[in-house]
Amino acid sequence: MYPPSLSESQGLWLASQIQDWELNHGTMLKRIHTQTAHNVLCYPVAATMFPTLFPRVQFDRARELQSIYNELYCVLATEEQWIYDNIKDLFPVDPFAAALWEIHEKVKANGGYVQDISAGIFRSDYMLQGEGVEMGGDESFDPRSDLELKQVEFNTIACAGGCHANKVVDMHRHLARTGAYNSLTDDNLINLPVLPPNNNIHSLATSLAQAHEVYGPPKSNTTETAILFVVQPNNFNVADERPIEYALWDSNIPAYRVEWGNDVLKHTSLSATKELLFHPPWQTSAKPVEISVIYYRAGHEPHEYDQTGQDLRFRLEQSRAIKCPSILAHILTFKKIQQSLAVPGVVEQFLPADKVAAVRKTFVPMYPLDTSETGLHARSLATDPDRSENYILKPSLEGGGHNVFGADIPAFLATVPPEAWSAYVLMQRIASPLVGNMLKSSQGIEEAAAVVSELGVFGACLWRCTRAGEGEVLRNETVGWSLKTKFADVDEMSVVKGFGCFDTPLLC
Amino acid sequence: MYPPSLSESQGLWLASQIQDWELNHGTMLKRIHTQTAHNVLCYPVAATMFPTLFPRVQFDRARELQSIYNELYCVLATEEQWIYDNIKDLFPVDPFAAALWEIHEKVKANGGYVQDISAGIFRSDYMLQGEGVEMGGDESFDPRSDLELKQVEFNTIACAGGCHANKVVDMHRHLARTGAYNSLTDDNLINLPVLPPNNNIHSLATSLAQAHEVYGPPKSNTTETAILFVVQPNNFNVADERPIEYALWDSNIPAYRVEWGNDVLKHTSLSATKELLFHPPWQTSAKPVEISVIYYRAGHEPHEYDQTGQDLRFRLEQSRAIKCPSILAHILTFKKIQQSLAVPGVVEQFLPADKVAAVRKTFVPMYPLDTSETGLHARSLATDPDRSENYILKPSLEGGGHNVFGADIPAFLATVPPEAWSAYVLMQRIASPLVGNMLKSSQGIEEAAAVVSELGVFGACLWRCTRAGEGEVLRNETVGWSLKTKFADVDEMSVVKGFGCFDTPLLC
Repeated sequence: MYPPSLSESQGLWLASQIQDWELNHGTMLKRIHTQTAHNVLCYPVAATMFPTLFPRVQFDRARELQSIYNELYCVLATEEQWIYDNIKDLFPVDPFAAALWEIHEKVKANGGYVQDISAGIFRSDYMLQGEGVEMGGDESFDPRSDLELKQVEFNTIACAGGCHANKVVDMHRHLARTGAYNSLTDDNLINLPVLPPNNNIHSLATSLAQAHEVYGPPKSNTTETAILFVVQPNNFNVADERPIEYALWDSNIPAYRVEWGNDVLKHTSLSATKELLFHPPWQTSAKPVEISVIYYRAGHEPHEYDQTGQDLRFRLEQSRAIKCPSILAHILTFKKIQQSLAVPGVVEQFLPADKVAAVRKTFVPMYPLDTSETGLHARSLATDPDRSENYILKPSLEGGGHNVFGADIPAFLATVPPEAWSAYVLMQRIASPLVGNMLKSSQGIEEAAAVVSELGVFGACLWRCTRAGEGEVLRNETVGWSLKTKFADVDEMSVVKGFGCFDTPLLC
Repeated sequence: MYPPSLSESQGLWLASQIQDWELNHGTMLKRIHTQTAHNVLCYPVAATMFPTLFPRVQFDRARELQSIYNELYCVLATEEQWIYDNIKDLFPVDPFAAALWEIHEKVKANGGYVQDISAGIFRSDYMLQGEGVEMGGDESFDPRSDLELKQVEFNTIACAGGCHANKVVDMHRHLARTGAYNSLTDDNLINLPVLPPNNNIHSLATSLAQAHEVYGPPKSNTTETAILFVVQPNNFNVADERPIEYALWDSNIPAYRVEWGNDVLKHTSLSATKELLFHPPWQTSAKPVEISVIYYRAGHEPHEYDQTGQDLRFRLEQSRAIKCPSILAHILTFKKIQQSLAVPGVVEQFLPADKVAAVRKTFVPMYPLDTSETGLHARSLATDPDRSENYILKPSLEGGGHNVFGADIPAFLATVPPEAWSAYVLMQRIASPLVGNMLKSSQGIEEAAAVVSELGVFGACLWRCTRAGEGEVLRNETVGWSLKTKFADVDEMSVVKGFGCFDTPLLC
């Protein structure tokens, strides 16, 4: 039986080890509304008490797939016309898509892009589909089973969780090396060789550092180049951003932060030749820094695109800085794009046949909710309380949190004017094998026989897109991963919002 | 002018940089009474906003002195008779001293000490005495001035602050490398070469690791040796202990924790040959570990010596494990010992003349409060409201927090029966030069023209004391330091209790 049943004192002991580790390694969230100039209250990020069983074959496979997905999205990011064709129907119903495209057009109309290189830090998320887990004595997935990796979504902007994932894996590995798990389980199951190490912080920083290097020396009348993190104001989750910034400084690469909003407009400017100059807000004198790379950890949510948001994104996109990501790559994160790629014949335009087969195996059925034939079929599924049970309704937004699940879909759609339905896609739910664990969060510790995990794989890319639309991939690497686990009966997965835990796979 | 006056937005910006650094590096305290099994609220440790001016000559001098103090205390720790002669008068008035001595006698009566090697992690605390700071344009101490290092106290057990000091220094150095300070001050004052690096965590772990190595292979019927941290229950300041434990594991040295109290009795045992066996409380089966080194981060406070406390200390002291520190070395932390050493001719018995001169220069006048001629003189000082102003009344306890200052002394002594006065020593106050800084704590941020700093220097020692009382110093190293700074008009210095901040010297 995995994980073992703990006595009360064993559970308390294990939980206190986890809390102390997290406190000491900054695996913390700020408690909302507690920050003042002089103080802030923090609490540990949710983490599983034990690593969660996960098949090694699928763990390795997901990481192998990343280079193919990286390639696909790099190529797509240079396919302006294809992107337009696939999202233009959103414009009337999705102001966010319209705003992003308008900024793109505005850059083109104002002299065009002066930087032909783009960077991407992507994260492809998977769940296991199928049964085949043996919950008996041998604690492993049945290799004869038909478990498959299915893609939940592909994220191209502000991909989060990397730093927490790194540290929570370090935590589970620490507990393993102390022998704590094995003495609790009284067998020899949880050892370092089955808990893969995670170096996200180093590798994400390295990815940005490489873009910084490609940018080269300053082009303006400045002496220093630096990476600019564009972040959300008052973020309670700085512990997922700051470690990357500190790691860059450890490599002698300057990295500054600016908050999305007026601060960007106030503290940046464009030189005559469109270098992006950052004027650090704390400076008493004017010594601007030339920005080599813009790393967006903001700008991925619709509410951020008021007039100020549009103006600042326009300024940043116009600039010579390498954007991570540029606006076309950002748009690729829309669920509408994921759904378009699932249409037969589409991926085939962009990848060779063997790679097509590999990515297609990870697709689950996805439908537009428009008035095409497929769309009408999807509408019939989505409005039927029984048939909608197996589906998720997703708006074309980055990240989770706005999805509608199963039987809730018909009632939800009844509140949306049908002409706006095409802003959504309908995706089949992924039925994951159920395993056991204990989940610890600020809300409590709960033991569950049925938890499911989501494996995210981080990819880092650099690509060139000439004004003529010619593309070239300069860098394509798999740089890390994160595992998140939640109760099977909870629909949403977002650790920092209180659903799910960071986790480590126990490879079997 | 140092530090510079900040605008409100500059101050907010700098404070937020400090908070985020501390959150991300675990430089945190647990908020008392918030810990549950699943959660705990934490907040950043108090830190100065800027490094504090400190003369490089005295900083270097304090570290040079440490090897002499280490030698002195290693030698004293083997001088049983001398210790007895100097603290025996405390026994009737100080139950703590009596309890420790009784444990020592009990070990001797029960077959004696089976381990002839002891370890010490000491911290010698200094303040600057004298004037001579120029608060004008050049921001440096006048080298012609008569600044001297004066010893506040010498700590031989549970020396704290090392981990926080390390991380706060890292924080100030990070802000310096980002150029933040210099852009705020608009000059080039705060650079890495004037902010000495601090590696306490690594070096304290290394000190314990060396003792572990000296202990050698297991002597009992076990396969593993480990270091045991004996810690205070429900400590809100685990961030000052855990990093040392994690660093030991990083060096593949097992390190376990046990809380002072019943847990020690429950989870340890002595083998027939007095090896100390630790039975990890979380284990489902009996696989004890042999303890090589006991690192006390508890047992230094009188209230800990109830019957359980006496019993557990007796068990630990009897064992073959190397104690850090052993009970005789522990007793050396008493203020009575510090006062005895200040008596003319005493240090001279234990050190060669050149070293005597070096340590004597750091002494301030200290008096017993007994009925000797010196003691009667001290009583006349202590009971006079005017003359007591320049003195501190200290009980013979480790650490601060129980001292009585200046004009408060006569009224306090009036509440103590005169026959108990000899539990105290009277020490002349150290008048430090005043410099400026901004102090940030969970209570607020305050700018002050008058702050004073205390420099602690960590020493690590190993020594042998044969049953015949022959001593030999095996290791004598200076392994780190901490700087703490408080408002000059606050008497007590204890960062975790809310008085003062961790700090970095700005060497000048």
